[in-house]
Amino acid sequence: MKENNFSKKSFISIDELTQSELTQIIKKARMMKNLEKQGKRYELNEALKNKRLASLFYEPSTRTRTSFETAMVELGGNLLGFAGTEGTSVMKNESILATVMMYWANHADAVVMRHPKDGAVRWASDVLGIPVINGGDGKNEHPTQALLDLVTIDEITPGINGTKIGFGGDLAHGRTVRSNAIALSKYDNITINWAAAQEFAMPNDLIEFLKNKGVKVNQYDTVEEVMKNSDIYYMTRPQKERIKDKTPQQVNEIMQKYRITLDKLTANPNIRILHPLPVDSSTAEIDTDVFFSKNQYFFAQAENGIFLRKALLYEILNGTESTTFNPNIEQIVANNREYLQSKEYNKGELLLDRIEHGIVIDHIPDGLAHTIDETLGFSKRGYKIMTLANAESSSLQQKGMLKITGATLTEREYKQIVEICPNVTFNIIKDWNVAEKFKYHLCQNDNCVTRVINEDVPPRFEEDGRCHYCGRK
Amino acid sequence: MKENNFSKKSFISIDELTQSELTQIIKKARMMKNLEKQGKRYELNEALKNKRLASLFYEPSTRTRTSFETAMVELGGNLLGFAGTEGTSVMKNESILATVMMYWANHADAVVMRHPKDGAVRWASDVLGIPVINGGDGKNEHPTQALLDLVTIDEITPGINGTKIGFGGDLAHGRTVRSNAIALSKYDNITINWAAAQEFAMPNDLIEFLKNKGVKVNQYDTVEEVMKNSDIYYMTRPQKERIKDKTPQQVNEIMQKYRITLDKLTANPNIRILHPLPVDSSTAEIDTDVFFSKNQYFFAQAENGIFLRKALLYEILNGTESTTFNPNIEQIVANNREYLQSKEYNKGELLLDRIEHGIVIDHIPDGLAHTIDETLGFSKRGYKIMTLANAESSSLQQKGMLKITGATLTEREYKQIVEICPNVTFNIIKDWNVAEKFKYHLCQNDNCVTRVINEDVPPRFEEDGRCHYCGRK
Amino acid sequence: MKENNFSKKSFISIDELTQSELTQIIKKARMMKNLEKQGKRYELNEALKNKRLASLFYEPSTRTRTSFETAMVELGGNLLGFAGTEGTSVMKNESILATVMMYWANHADAVVMRHPKDGAVRWASDVLGIPVINGGDGKNEHPTQALLDLVTIDEITPGINGTKIGFGGDLAHGRTVRSNAIALSKYDNITINWAAAQEFAMPNDLIEFLKNKGVKVNQYDTVEEVMKNSDIYYMTRPQKERIKDKTPQQVNEIMQKYRITLDKLTANPNIRILHPLPVDSSTAEIDTDVFFSKNQYFFAQAENGIFLRKALLYEILNGTESTTFNPNIEQIVANNREYLQSKEYNKGELLLDRIEHGIVIDHIPDGLAHTIDETLGFSKRGYKIMTLANAESSSLQQKGMLKITGATLTEREYKQIVEICPNVTFNIIKDWNVAEKFKYHLCQNDNCVTRVINEDVPPRFEEDGRCHYCGRK
Repeated sequence: MKENNFSKKSFISIDELTQSELTQIIKKARMMKNLEKQGKRYELNEALKNKRLASLFYEPSTRTRTSFETAMVELGGNLLGFAGTEGTSVMKNESILATVMMYWANHADAVVMRHPKDGAVRWASDVLGIPVINGGDGKNEHPTQALLDLVTIDEITPGINGTKIGFGGDLAHGRTVRSNAIALSKYDNITINWAAAQEFAMPNDLIEFLKNKGVKVNQYDTVEEVMKNSDIYYMTRPQKERIKDKTPQQVNEIMQKYRITLDKLTANPNIRILHPLPVDSSTAEIDTDVFFSKNQYFFAQAENGIFLRKALLYEILNGTESTTFNPNIEQIVANNREYLQSKEYNKGELLLDRIEHGIVIDHIPDGLAHTIDETLGFSKRGYKIMTLANAESSSLQQKGMLKITGATLTEREYKQIVEICPNVTFNIIKDWNVAEKFKYHLCQNDNCVTRVINEDVPPRFEEDGRCHYCGRK
Repeated sequence: MKENNFSKKSFISIDELTQSELTQIIKKARMMKNLEKQGKRYELNEALKNKRLASLFYEPSTRTRTSFETAMVELGGNLLGFAGTEGTSVMKNESILATVMMYWANHADAVVMRHPKDGAVRWASDVLGIPVINGGDGKNEHPTQALLDLVTIDEITPGINGTKIGFGGDLAHGRTVRSNAIALSKYDNITINWAAAQEFAMPNDLIEFLKNKGVKVNQYDTVEEVMKNSDIYYMTRPQKERIKDKTPQQVNEIMQKYRITLDKLTANPNIRILHPLPVDSSTAEIDTDVFFSKNQYFFAQAENGIFLRKALLYEILNGTESTTFNPNIEQIVANNREYLQSKEYNKGELLLDRIEHGIVIDHIPDGLAHTIDETLGFSKRGYKIMTLANAESSSLQQKGMLKITGATLTEREYKQIVEICPNVTFNIIKDWNVAEKFKYHLCQNDNCVTRVINEDVPPRFEEDGRCHYCGRK
Repeated sequence: MKENNFSKKSFISIDELTQSELTQIIKKARMMKNLEKQGKRYELNEALKNKRLASLFYEPSTRTRTSFETAMVELGGNLLGFAGTEGTSVMKNESILATVMMYWANHADAVVMRHPKDGAVRWASDVLGIPVINGGDGKNEHPTQALLDLVTIDEITPGINGTKIGFGGDLAHGRTVRSNAIALSKYDNITINWAAAQEFAMPNDLIEFLKNKGVKVNQYDTVEEVMKNSDIYYMTRPQKERIKDKTPQQVNEIMQKYRITLDKLTANPNIRILHPLPVDSSTAEIDTDVFFSKNQYFFAQAENGIFLRKALLYEILNGTESTTFNPNIEQIVANNREYLQSKEYNKGELLLDRIEHGIVIDHIPDGLAHTIDETLGFSKRGYKIMTLANAESSSLQQKGMLKITGATLTEREYKQIVEICPNVTFNIIKDWNVAEKFKYHLCQNDNCVTRVINEDVPPRFEEDGRCHYCGRK
């Protein structure tokens, strides 16, 4: 089998890897583990000599950050970056773009990044000339966790094919379950059993995706039933920091029935308990007694994180030349404009012919034209503004029109307007004519990095309509 | 004299070291200092090559953390860990147990740890398979500070025996004074003089302990009197962060009379001023002018911290094999149950015979049975609950009884109940009989790590009744 | 040309360097850049072997801190210190003096420091026996930024003489503009053009200073006019954290007209945009589109920061012996007392003859004598206090006098009193006589480090009346 080449490649989504690529990385991780178990921890400590990994953690992390650090040190490299943004210029509103560029400028050979916004890591990889590894983006993905889980599952069920795995805890808000399930779907004869509170149920789109891939997905009422039908139980933490409508105490109560306790383990005495960790010690979704049971496998799983990350960094960086900083980056262009040539085009001309140059925004819900002007400050900046009621509109949902003479809009301004009124139409007027007419589409996922006004990430969609950054339709 | 062996040993309490062991470490620290003074700072920089020290500081530190870091780097080792929990998964409620395991998993060869709870560091050392050094636990101990103080005292009073030392500042809340006094008590002919505000007086149990060890302990009214009768004045900072019932301003006012100022130094022009540092610049318990006096010795004392920590790390780690992570840890079992077979046993049977399996909690003060159920949620979880008034109870302090059919309790639940009602009796009912009857004792120190519900540290007591973790009776 | 010697020298203000010294450092930085561009990034990685740089950042930083770190690592040295004071003993009120001493004690060979107070870094350099580099002090200076800017300007306008540079953004609160303009003033035929909102205008004292140095300074109304007349446009961020009387939103509105946008660049298509970074992504004083334009030069400028800092650290530390910690520091004595022998002297004697020893504070505005006593607690501490109305005072602004029998004052107490009443006169009474009579002057800059009571920095003034620390008159 020909070796896959990961040299200088970014790693953002588990879905990008073929089964052959997964197998290659798992094998390399196992090789790293074997070296460790033979007492040769530093065998490869010249591999990444003078290589630098920028570790950019916008959100708290113990395992992911530390294991990348351990991997880098044991391979002979060094580190820069931050753990939390407290002491950095992010406090002075520095954007993701400008921040990550600085670490390339500081001669990082690769970046590992965690960020609260979905798609933020892909944005970084799009603008940087060095490989970027996703250390977790919002509620989207955590692909190196999925890889280390595969390494661990492969220890329990060699070859992974035929694995019967149970999922529990919070299947709705965690990125781990998503990445993990996607990874497993690349193997044959996989069974996923799950039980969770209604609020934490596995999302329907994920279930559908898995079924389409041939994965058997079974929902059960109790943890015990899931255990009886599984070899591995993969427990997860309620993502309290992403659950806004419940108090921590309420989350704990909801989780009570789904906790892993010693008595439930009797349902399958051979079950292996995995968990991406941390366990929330307030919820205790895994009871502390289970930490000391023979079913506990999550600490070994965590150590596998080091071997996996050693494998990954080795594959990406070993033997490469030091990267040169090249700051003349090309702009990434938004592709979210839907150009129109409707019947309104001509009527528009008629209504708009009083402006020589400028913008006409059409289909504004009643009353919001003023909000747009106030938010963007056109009048304040001296632009001539005109507001018109649209004759076609019903009296119940009157539509308005806003003409701004002489203005051109930046991408940020388009976004700001569409955040206020999603369905408006923009008419660009040049020489008394409508030069362009379009709708400006935003990603529907309000945690997507493209939705953060100040970040100025250009909205981009794939051919199948999925957001280029967060992957949502 | 046979050398003591510290290889791979934890260091949690100064009380664990014999005088011979103290002498050996002090000598080694002096050797490290001699290398420094001869310009051979990096002479031993192969000693800890590829060794890793996890530095886990749950509380702020400048000196302790930095000097361990300096020591490790100068001996050729490297570091991992955190300074403050802000960027770590402790923010997501990860327990001490799970957190420290992660650093062992990341191939740490030793841990130095500071934590706000008394006994937390011993708990870490109980569950880890690598040596743990106490960098300060709550208001309990700071043993490496005591050691570096001994190194410094030994410079001033060679051999330490016969030392006349004054203590001032906050002798009630600081862990330094306790560790320090215990260490000195291992030497001969020690005199401890002290003066402090009533709120900051030396604790009686410590005075008693010292007197039993043959230390002369003299209380004086003024700093000047202490100075006149001492060779060394050991000043300490008011531990404002542990004094809840006074404002910082009030603490400053109380301390005013006990501050070290230039004019007070005239009482003994040869006095050497030590201080574990930091000085609180708002209190100015040592006036800034004193920093520049010839009596100032606390900066040299701080540098001794590096030599001491080099000595300690060298003794613990030099020549050892790299530690292997072995996550299948054994449960540490609580030994706090006092089993009973009292006359209530039979009466109990009578009253309890309506339950086949379950728990009966007896001697509940009036009204608290409901609080227990609400806190632990037995009814909500579907257990059948019955509350009985105890016929024997006086009408003034009526005792109640709570029967929970079908339930078993976790250690955490026992703790939660006893936190509400300390003196209850638990009856475990099996097959219509009282299978076990016991009281569940908690450490009386409410800052003890065993008292933090979510940490699930099993209460353990030594044979003399002292808490295994915080050492309090 | 004889080489200037920077060995073990501190670098606090750009004004300390001659043109010859500037040229030498710029040349060395260019040499470092050439090594990088030839793929010899680690060519000099033995230069600072075993040297340690303490990086003490009391305020957030990404670039300055990281580039010093990169420079140190690439030259073979290592680092200690903190990024934000959260995890340090600064949280326990440790003073600057005591904190920086600790890093010297930990064998730092040099310090780079950033602090919110003007003059704080010079204070550190005054008390330490190791070189100190100013990484930014309050709104005072940021001299390594000025140096890296010169390196960058020298790339665009070789030799720097004749440079036409525009300044924009916040010219009032930023330390960058000040340091930068001072540096440029050392060259010939420099033109500085600027446009800024009234609130952010270039300070008059700086304009005057520049004109005296022969710099042409032209104010314009618009960004476009500045661009037309300049080769370089140096944009700066509004220093929101130092602007207390405006909301961030108000600052953004004021800046709107002065933002750099693609359309304004048409005024001079060859203009190079510099910026010390970070750009505030909420203000977007440089529009994100400009990041991708060919006029963008600020990322290359940021990378120059590494080469500059490598040059500086090399010049200061290469070939030096490791520094030895020598904590017996000499006191730096305040020189801010203005001794008096006025007619009041005799009258004073008359009024004061009732005290044998003590302090008489004169010229206290009506009512404030009580405030002084309350703040300093003389009565509470048992001193005998007497308050007198001054016969000479008009009824409108009655002056009072405060006699404190038996007291002597510390420097801190003098400061506390003068902070309450700036114009009082102190009379030191010994043996019934006025032994000394003086006024106690404070720096007029209320952000000066000498004005922070707890830091106990002695007020010092240069011969020309400028504050020794913050440089203000």
